[in-house]
Amino acid sequence: MEQRNKIAIIVAGGSGSRMGSSIPKQFLDLSGKPVLWHTVNAFVSAFNDIRIVLVLPEVHFGYVEPWLHEFNTSANVTLVKGGETRFHSVRNGLQEVKMPSVVFVHDGVRPLISTSLIRTCYEAALTKGSAIPVIDMKDSIRQVEGEENKAVDREQFKIIQTPQTFLSEWLLPAFELPYDPLFTDEATVVERQGHRVHLVPGEEANIKITRPLDLTIASALLKEKNS
Amino acid sequence: MEQRNKIAIIVAGGSGSRMGSSIPKQFLDLSGKPVLWHTVNAFVSAFNDIRIVLVLPEVHFGYVEPWLHEFNTSANVTLVKGGETRFHSVRNGLQEVKMPSVVFVHDGVRPLISTSLIRTCYEAALTKGSAIPVIDMKDSIRQVEGEENKAVDREQFKIIQTPQTFLSEWLLPAFELPYDPLFTDEATVVERQGHRVHLVPGEEANIKITRPLDLTIASALLKEKNS
Repeated sequence: MEQRNKIAIIVAGGSGSRMGSSIPKQFLDLSGKPVLWHTVNAFVSAFNDIRIVLVLPEVHFGYVEPWLHEFNTSANVTLVKGGETRFHSVRNGLQEVKMPSVVFVHDGVRPLISTSLIRTCYEAALTKGSAIPVIDMKDSIRQVEGEENKAVDREQFKIIQTPQTFLSEWLLPAFELPYDPLFTDEATVVERQGHRVHLVPGEEANIKITRPLDLTIASALLKEKNS
Repeated sequence: MEQRNKIAIIVAGGSGSRMGSSIPKQFLDLSGKPVLWHTVNAFVSAFNDIRIVLVLPEVHFGYVEPWLHEFNTSANVTLVKGGETRFHSVRNGLQEVKMPSVVFVHDGVRPLISTSLIRTCYEAALTKGSAIPVIDMKDSIRQVEGEENKAVDREQFKIIQTPQTFLSEWLLPAFELPYDPLFTDEATVVERQGHRVHLVPGEEANIKITRPLDLTIASALLKEKNS
């Protein structure tokens, strides 16, 4: 099978304001290491020739410099300044991409991503152009419109995760589009250019750490994973 | 304000097959008590004059008999046999309802429901006829149709919880309708009769215990709640 350069844009631009902590959530401790350490480690473990671009506010560079050397591929880790929105942060990270590559865009606060899901996304993006991990919705939902609401079939909906993975020749031109608030993730940007988004099965454990409770959950999941 | 009889139909008919355990999930230990004990306790704590109808498979009656006496209102707890589907189980429980009442229908595996949410649902159902707790969706979602999928605005959707709460004169006639597989919850049944479903703000902590991990999460939440 064709081989490609691999590059992971890991976005860690959050302010941590929802965590009730002055340390942004991506730098909080999870089983003895910062959340973001686990995230970087997953990608480095999936592909030893991967390049990592960490996008974060410049004032946070000091949080990651102490441990970046732990990765023996640390020469391949680049720090890039975050932007005003996720779109702008990702666009900053994409400056580092040399074609042709497979590009992963991943939330820094999803540290429990498995190496096997990373590899699945790579393979799928190679053949389909894109790979977006999704999981089933386990809750019942209703659609709300003003004062009205109606039951909808949850089977028709999927919950989106990251890494959103693309061929560079899809992703780079898409991010030359002018910013639109409807760009809520990378898939919506690529779609705007007429590309079709390909879904792959994600993982229940690939949670996003946004509330304090999520760290407790992540810690329990990590123990389960390592046991 | 008008006062009404209160009755909680607590549905605990699950087989526990998803828990990797031979004990159904509603009877597993959560901080020293069975999951279902916490659920019953929440309703008894919210209203000391409430009647509780526990709907569960007859073979599980033995799981609850040892602790039902702990509730000093235990004379008001009735055990009722579950049915083939949730609709049939709720319909069995509704045989115990004498009009006019406010009827709560609650998942036995949602033990972290707060007394304040139970009271909110009661008040809202008194004035609006129905009260369904909902929370915001925190994940991005896509709608899938065959091979196609598209981004949708998650702001338009709400995640449904229980207790789904109704005036008995809405709920009882609705459950005389013939069963329809589209009846995924009580709100859909009541809606079929032309009633409007009223949404109230639910609680993040009011989780449904379905996977083994959920027990770990519930335990962490319970500690947070009691600390």
